[in-house]
Amino acid sequence: MEIAIYPLGTGNSSITKEVSSIFNVLEHCGLPYDITVMGTIIEGTLDELFALARTLHDNVFSDTVERVLTVIKIDDRR
Amino acid sequence: MEIAIYPLGTGNSSITKEVSSIFNVLEHCGLPYDITVMGTIIEGTLDELFALARTLHDNVFSDTVERVLTVIKIDDRR
Amino acid sequence: MEIAIYPLGTGNSSITKEVSSIFNVLEHCGLPYDITVMGTIIEGTLDELFALARTLHDNVFSDTVERVLTVIKIDDRR
Amino acid sequence: MEIAIYPLGTGNSSITKEVSSIFNVLEHCGLPYDITVMGTIIEGTLDELFALARTLHDNVFSDTVERVLTVIKIDDRR
Repeated sequence: MEIAIYPLGTGNSSITKEVSSIFNVLEHCGLPYDITVMGTIIEGTLDELFALARTLHDNVFSDTVERVLTVIKIDDRR
Repeated sequence: MEIAIYPLGTGNSSITKEVSSIFNVLEHCGLPYDITVMGTIIEGTLDELFALARTLHDNVFSDTVERVLTVIKIDDRR
Repeated sequence: MEIAIYPLGTGNSSITKEVSSIFNVLEHCGLPYDITVMGTIIEGTLDELFALARTLHDNVFSDTVERVLTVIKIDDRR
Repeated sequence: MEIAIYPLGTGNSSITKEVSSIFNVLEHCGLPYDITVMGTIIEGTLDELFALARTLHDNVFSDTVERVLTVIKIDDRR
């Protein structure tokens, strides 16, 4: 899965601060991940990935972030 | 949420048959949805949407579909 | 082609004002298009679509918009 | 820019062969790029990136590939 999360309307073109919670969640998720300049690639079962995507998305909301755009791409071979 | 699901390696450039299960799932999901030529737009809570995305994605796999690409975009205002 | 354009860092969770230029460009582009809540679907040749995508993306920049995220999906059958 | 290109209907869930032309184009494009398991990240001006996206997309068509899905994400700060 690849996931990219963008807070909208933050008042600053840099969103580094707003998405910093992502790194903490990833560090503790127990799945292999790779952070790129365009998003994060994570490997896992579908259950694990959907649960993680949900958590990552939720964590970007805050007192100052009222809108979040999340783009997910799942490439699943069985 | 917008979701687009693509079976890969089906042997035919038309994927209408492979994604037909999607329409049945949508019809019974209880959420408002809109099918476009590029995907399906569905409104609901995050829990509802993630569960539905999972079901839609899973349903496209079959004896002849071993790989599925799913692209999801969530635009969430709170 | 489906295209969705998001100005980042605008200071307001509504981006309606920032993307309003899109509608004007679309109206004069001469191609059939359909606006959804998640983006815009446009039909045309690859040359037409890439040129239009470029113009739409460029037009969202302004004195107050310094960063733009554009997501494009092209489904091309020949 | 991140770009991911998927031939549809190829008859095999592996698409490695069909997208192999991408690597040759990238090697000669003169722009810095990074290939991940989910796509390719390329840095350049908007003109360079759109021209390259067009070439990469076109090159995946062949006698056996009649439909190509291309997903592009552009994150542009000025």
